[in-house]
Amino acid sequence: MPLPRQVFIAVIGAGGVGKCFLSQLHHLASNLSRSPAGPTYLSLILLSTSGKSIHHADYKSLNNWESELASSTTPPLPLPQLADYLVKAPGKVVLVDNTSNQDVADSYPMFLKKGLSIVTPNKKAFSGSYQLWNDIFAAAANGQGSGGYIYHESSVGAGLPVISTLKELVETGDEVRKIEGVFSGTMSFLFNSFQPVNGGGGKFSAEVKTAKDKGFTEPDPRDDLNGLDVARKLTILARLAGLKVESPTSFPVQSLIPKELESCSSGDEFLQRLPEFDGQMDELKSAAEKEGKVVRFVGSVDVPKGEVKVGLEKFDKSHPIAALKGSDNIIAFYTKRYGDNPLIIQGAGAGGEVTAMGVTGDLVKVLKLLQ
Amino acid sequence: MPLPRQVFIAVIGAGGVGKCFLSQLHHLASNLSRSPAGPTYLSLILLSTSGKSIHHADYKSLNNWESELASSTTPPLPLPQLADYLVKAPGKVVLVDNTSNQDVADSYPMFLKKGLSIVTPNKKAFSGSYQLWNDIFAAAANGQGSGGYIYHESSVGAGLPVISTLKELVETGDEVRKIEGVFSGTMSFLFNSFQPVNGGGGKFSAEVKTAKDKGFTEPDPRDDLNGLDVARKLTILARLAGLKVESPTSFPVQSLIPKELESCSSGDEFLQRLPEFDGQMDELKSAAEKEGKVVRFVGSVDVPKGEVKVGLEKFDKSHPIAALKGSDNIIAFYTKRYGDNPLIIQGAGAGGEVTAMGVTGDLVKVLKLLQ
Repeated sequence: MPLPRQVFIAVIGAGGVGKCFLSQLHHLASNLSRSPAGPTYLSLILLSTSGKSIHHADYKSLNNWESELASSTTPPLPLPQLADYLVKAPGKVVLVDNTSNQDVADSYPMFLKKGLSIVTPNKKAFSGSYQLWNDIFAAAANGQGSGGYIYHESSVGAGLPVISTLKELVETGDEVRKIEGVFSGTMSFLFNSFQPVNGGGGKFSAEVKTAKDKGFTEPDPRDDLNGLDVARKLTILARLAGLKVESPTSFPVQSLIPKELESCSSGDEFLQRLPEFDGQMDELKSAAEKEGKVVRFVGSVDVPKGEVKVGLEKFDKSHPIAALKGSDNIIAFYTKRYGDNPLIIQGAGAGGEVTAMGVTGDLVKVLKLLQ
Repeated sequence: MPLPRQVFIAVIGAGGVGKCFLSQLHHLASNLSRSPAGPTYLSLILLSTSGKSIHHADYKSLNNWESELASSTTPPLPLPQLADYLVKAPGKVVLVDNTSNQDVADSYPMFLKKGLSIVTPNKKAFSGSYQLWNDIFAAAANGQGSGGYIYHESSVGAGLPVISTLKELVETGDEVRKIEGVFSGTMSFLFNSFQPVNGGGGKFSAEVKTAKDKGFTEPDPRDDLNGLDVARKLTILARLAGLKVESPTSFPVQSLIPKELESCSSGDEFLQRLPEFDGQMDELKSAAEKEGKVVRFVGSVDVPKGEVKVGLEKFDKSHPIAALKGSDNIIAFYTKRYGDNPLIIQGAGAGGEVTAMGVTGDLVKVLKLLQ
């Protein structure tokens, strides 16, 4: 394979996903350096966290990033300076944004125009304003521009092949009619536990607490329960399907935070008061049960109608959405070619390793294109 | 996107898949010629069927291939001559093999070495001898060679993203432990009808007849029931997962053709005598039923053990394989990263439009690489 001989990698973010990515990068770099089709060398030339940054003026590879980062006292470079540093690298550069930072996302058009490629799970770049979406793809080489490439598989469903599949359906001329699924590992776990298909399940507030204790929620569970994370993912899918969705708040999103608890000053106060509302959730549960159904928190895009929505819906117990397990995601594409039985993708949609895998997979795609 | 300005397309095969592909190619060519990133022109310069062939010495585009083919009396070019014609085209060439022809498959290494790229659903190229597999990827630019690119998504599960997903799991360093699923639309339909999860179902021979009448089987249903089609798909997946599988007959494959009927001289005689064996199938069904399970025809690859097998197995009624509908395929990847809950891909795994979609999707990938 005529891969480039050397490609420079810059990584922003070394949290849960970032650390897994760095480990996968190490594995990939080792494989590519021994490729029978001729070696490719990946050099990590910058690593930046929220508080620190490491890089060398001579673009020397950060082979011992862990110890270098630990001993570094350099604050992160401002984004324009970071771009200047990368643009002057003696070769092609891929910027890996493993943050969920809006400022970094807002700089994508600038990075891309300068010829830097980007791979990222950062939802904010693709689910914020429609203007930012347009600016990104106007600049990108895999959009309408002549700049760097950009890929973001892990912005929906982590490493599951959701975005690549939707893009292929569209590019090959299929007619996407509806996209429906469970797009949040947290919501999946909560409702699979709250109302399992075979009966049982605990109080809703207790399941939220269990999910938090297992590390399945954000530090403040309200950040999952408000539905915004799912709304961001639906915004991305709807835009890829051709809808001009202005923002993740421009369509109906059901929040599971009771109105009365919106003013809670902390996540702890919220969790403490949540049991007051278990009665309401139990009513929803028994109403569904009476119809032989279960309640699930889903998102859907109706393409011909131009409708996007996020919230609770009832599903027959035999429906694949009802039968989901653990904290899995499920995404069903209803299209003209696939007819009544949708194309379904299912599996873990959150977690460091699988999210990083989507990023690493995107990096492999970009490396193939950067010939 | 810096796509090439003009790419030449040669198509072999204009049957069910071939016709759908030509229609999708028309749509794609029209879109690419109007791309905001700068137009790309796709020119169909050769179309060949089992009996006829059309092409012009000056590489003029076959804009009216239907009428030209209808009026053509030219027999197909011998493959070496076909290669000569394509190699002299004034630009990059992608050969689309929509046949299931072994001779065409055997010529892939020769085509690739000459710099021609190939996209195809032809299973025979990837599931025949291990030598052919090696020769193909030794020559291909996305293997170890410097020739053309080759992609074959539709050789397993039609347009479902099965091969691309498995490749990404491997390339990003995941550890694939087991691949399991229903890989034949015909077998899926037969067993979903023979033993639905909710009870009922007809005699096996009657379901075979129904499937044939609905066009869900090969003209001679024995070509589905012998398990070879599934064995070919498992061979491809096992090889991609790193196993050196010598051929699709080098591992256990259960044939559903009763020994006594192997000597039937025709498919009709076979169908006529098949009811004699309904008793055996009913026994399997009730044995499964007693365990609360259903019988399904599946294939699996156990990567650490190096074992591949194809045949009947029993599944809990709540298992995703048991709950499959219609003639859908389902493929589950059990990996280190995905843990106990596999990454699952499900949907139509046969049919002209969805098979052609995988081919068109591969063509889009090659076009991006042929910069």
